[in-house]
Amino acid sequence: MAQKTTLKEFESVFPKLEAALLEHAKSYNLPQKALDWYKQSLETNAVGGKCNRGMSVPDSASLLLGRPLTEDEYFKAATLGWCTELLQAFFLVSDDIMDSSITRRGKPCWYRQEGVGMIAINDAFMLEAALYSLLKKYFRNHPRYVDLLELFHEVTFQTEIGQLCDLLTAPEDKVDLDNFSMEKYRFIVIYKTAYYSFYLPVALALYMLDLATPQNLKQAEDILIPLGEYFQIQDDYLDNFGLPEHIGKIGTDIMDNKCSWLVNQALAIATPEQRKVLEENYGRKDKDKEAAVKKLYDELQLEQRYKDYEEKRVGEIRSLIDQVDETQGLKKGVFEAFLAKIYKRSK
Amino acid sequence: MAQKTTLKEFESVFPKLEAALLEHAKSYNLPQKALDWYKQSLETNAVGGKCNRGMSVPDSASLLLGRPLTEDEYFKAATLGWCTELLQAFFLVSDDIMDSSITRRGKPCWYRQEGVGMIAINDAFMLEAALYSLLKKYFRNHPRYVDLLELFHEVTFQTEIGQLCDLLTAPEDKVDLDNFSMEKYRFIVIYKTAYYSFYLPVALALYMLDLATPQNLKQAEDILIPLGEYFQIQDDYLDNFGLPEHIGKIGTDIMDNKCSWLVNQALAIATPEQRKVLEENYGRKDKDKEAAVKKLYDELQLEQRYKDYEEKRVGEIRSLIDQVDETQGLKKGVFEAFLAKIYKRSK
Repeated sequence: MAQKTTLKEFESVFPKLEAALLEHAKSYNLPQKALDWYKQSLETNAVGGKCNRGMSVPDSASLLLGRPLTEDEYFKAATLGWCTELLQAFFLVSDDIMDSSITRRGKPCWYRQEGVGMIAINDAFMLEAALYSLLKKYFRNHPRYVDLLELFHEVTFQTEIGQLCDLLTAPEDKVDLDNFSMEKYRFIVIYKTAYYSFYLPVALALYMLDLATPQNLKQAEDILIPLGEYFQIQDDYLDNFGLPEHIGKIGTDIMDNKCSWLVNQALAIATPEQRKVLEENYGRKDKDKEAAVKKLYDELQLEQRYKDYEEKRVGEIRSLIDQVDETQGLKKGVFEAFLAKIYKRSK
Repeated sequence: MAQKTTLKEFESVFPKLEAALLEHAKSYNLPQKALDWYKQSLETNAVGGKCNRGMSVPDSASLLLGRPLTEDEYFKAATLGWCTELLQAFFLVSDDIMDSSITRRGKPCWYRQEGVGMIAINDAFMLEAALYSLLKKYFRNHPRYVDLLELFHEVTFQTEIGQLCDLLTAPEDKVDLDNFSMEKYRFIVIYKTAYYSFYLPVALALYMLDLATPQNLKQAEDILIPLGEYFQIQDDYLDNFGLPEHIGKIGTDIMDNKCSWLVNQALAIATPEQRKVLEENYGRKDKDKEAAVKKLYDELQLEQRYKDYEEKRVGEIRSLIDQVDETQGLKKGVFEAFLAKIYKRSK
């Protein structure tokens, strides 16, 4: 892991990409005011996160090659990483509107910033368009250019169907626990999160290095999707059982009527009386009702249930990693690196 | 023009494309409720318009070939036409939210329909994603597949920068006529409308028939962008001077603070007193104030001014068409067909 990129190193690539994007817009004589707006949107929405997804492209590329990347390789891999971050920015800006969220990364959500409002929808589109502009500029002549475009299209669609299912299953204003099920939960988690957060960065690294054989892609998917599912379940667990000083926020999944792993587990094992507690208290903006649900979670020993799940799941994932066939250039280390970052994290 | 497609013929292709799109979503085991939702969104938002943009792909292809299309050619051209309609649906669904519009095609806008609300943002994304799904299914092996993808990416971005400039220039809630200028007007019209409505369908027909040489594309752009500009200016003219029974709606550009050709012309020739009338009455939701602006438009003889503009512009476009070099397979008839549909239209 000596070749692990740092946020500082990864972020140092952004100004060049931003300049290319602004240059593209300028080539159409976009009026100055609109150009300034686009710049502001890029800097507010694409930069400032932890960049875990973006950084895992150069990290994976380096692990696949078994050596540090050259300067040119690093730039290429980081560019694909930033495309992943732009895709995420497109989702986050619009999800925040759809979810009526208040803050993002400790600041007001973009659509809530002075003078933005619904223009944020168009800004989200432009964040998505930006990634194709970068791919064209830097990968037009890459042998896997078409595959890169199709990968982004497919993962975008997958994330959108995950979001659709989430919006239909857990509308913030209408609590109906009959809507929830572990099956829907898994669908939402896999499509809304796992593909773009876990599969995409590794698939990008494989394409970039021209190591993306059907078998390698399939093996990566078969490990990274369960890993992404585990990651989200852990996220749901931490929302309730994590320490606010570790996770950097106070969990609101219960009050927000989220289709969380915890509520789905509770529904699966609750007695009729316990289910009634959920029916009457879940998804309400009320601290006392939230406390009643939290108390039930403790009674149902969901913390232990999560820990059992985690051990079992991590064991399965380790065994999948052990079985990876490296003969076509895939490396177990890529998956081990992901798992190491996630296992027993507290934030 | 014997080979001109009809709306009925064009619409008859849609069910096959819809089935392919639903099949794609189904392949991910999208839950039934979400699948039904996607179907409803496709049928409400992509179908039901005049399909002028979509139909001009098969029309242009037929004119380029100088003969009716075979069944397979028609299907391919209509598929590209439907991709254009999907792109437009993506824009219209989201524009309606950004503009707080009330109705679209005589029905409540999608986001205002029962139970939809902000889910419409994700639905708009899925309409955009749908076109890439169709391109992949039907054009994956086409020699110009990459060009088709890049064309859609580019035109999408162009439309988005046009929309951004429009939103920043003419916010519905803040009237500032200093913001308007013919330069900005032209930018908005060309990018927000002309590229996707006029250039895109012809460029698609050229790519489909593998006739898209740089020279042919350049010639098409050089004629279709002015034609699209003329079309929008005419639209602005009809909003005020057209007959509601012809245009099928009552114009609201004055009350909506639109950066219209008419207000820009008025600003360019108004005396200080006349400008004051505009300052005090434009962009207000008030019938009397609207009437004051309409009266000023009459005083300034904007109807005649438009007619003079139209004659001059059409003369210039005709001369551009006359000069078209047909040696690389482009045909003057393609542009003549567009012009014939537009010139002196009253609806």
